[in-house]
Amino acid sequence: MPERGNPWTVLSATVRYENGWIRAVENDVVAPQGTRATYGTVQFKQLGVGVVAIDGAGRVLLVGQFRFGAGAYLWEICKGGRAPDEPPLDAAARELREEAGVTARRWIDLMGFRASPGLTDEHGTYFLAWDLEEGEASPDPQERLERRRVPFAEALAMVDRGAITDLGTVAALLKAWRMAERGMLPDEVAALILPPP
Amino acid sequence: MPERGNPWTVLSATVRYENGWIRAVENDVVAPQGTRATYGTVQFKQLGVGVVAIDGAGRVLLVGQFRFGAGAYLWEICKGGRAPDEPPLDAAARELREEAGVTARRWIDLMGFRASPGLTDEHGTYFLAWDLEEGEASPDPQERLERRRVPFAEALAMVDRGAITDLGTVAALLKAWRMAERGMLPDEVAALILPPP
Repeated sequence: MPERGNPWTVLSATVRYENGWIRAVENDVVAPQGTRATYGTVQFKQLGVGVVAIDGAGRVLLVGQFRFGAGAYLWEICKGGRAPDEPPLDAAARELREEAGVTARRWIDLMGFRASPGLTDEHGTYFLAWDLEEGEASPDPQERLERRRVPFAEALAMVDRGAITDLGTVAALLKAWRMAERGMLPDEVAALILPPP
Repeated sequence: MPERGNPWTVLSATVRYENGWIRAVENDVVAPQGTRATYGTVQFKQLGVGVVAIDGAGRVLLVGQFRFGAGAYLWEICKGGRAPDEPPLDAAARELREEAGVTARRWIDLMGFRASPGLTDEHGTYFLAWDLEEGEASPDPQERLERRRVPFAEALAMVDRGAITDLGTVAALLKAWRMAERGMLPDEVAALILPPP
């Protein structure tokens, strides 16, 4: 039975850079094989949330924006961050309301995720939401967002042709599609995701 | 027609922390709406590569390890980094050889990806590989890896039940499955991915 506990020993950890969102930490460690090393990691202060939101016509809400970190314009599902004490579903509902002006009556857990696990502790939760009620968006004034609604099949086609590349968006859309294909979702939302036969 | 260029103006950028893998940069910016702000980002010095490698029995190679950044034991496809001047396919083949001791004769591009685009510039390429030739693994001595081969359907079941959470692994496995389901792959590899009818 292999050992799956933490084989790293941290001798000291020093915060080398910090802002409101991240903390760069330099760890003085003993590696699994016993050698001393320095291992720098990035801690995320917020946890991630995201939502694949589908309207009554089977269209997914996509948000387009120039992402400063990536230096590129990306199309993504509605995503954001939450403080550790904000419940994931509350945070996802808040982001959906702020970014898209939409409230959803039905929610299902799509997946818990980790990202860039060698270098960061980023993790979070994605949801599937439907039965939407339309309202007024109130995006962060620092953000400049485009909002689109595309048929689910077209969102998948965007993944197919590389027009959607954000890992979280790709994973969440494909997971929703798989769950629909495999009968793992309520019929009412599976019918919105799958094309009519 | 919406403006999709870069709406951020960078007045100055200061490297606040740097090691062999990452660079934390504090940017003094003018945000899209015209307000001054500080925006800290993380630049990755290596580009990402990964490979969904499938053997002749339809089993995917999975690598298990305690990920120091995440602080958790994760099952992932074979992944690694490359220098900007190393071609992605060469780097993926090298990682596959080092981590799993395997050479693949057939390769297909699965997807280009971006991760954590608000805060990082992480991006890379995932491949699908098959027609494997077995050899000797030579993992990084700092790594302690477990190697498993699981039928493709079982890897998907691990995604279904949350036993695989790494976003890159989830996205790459589901993308390979979708391509097989949709007739977007050569028959010989689609037959390894899809369960017999």
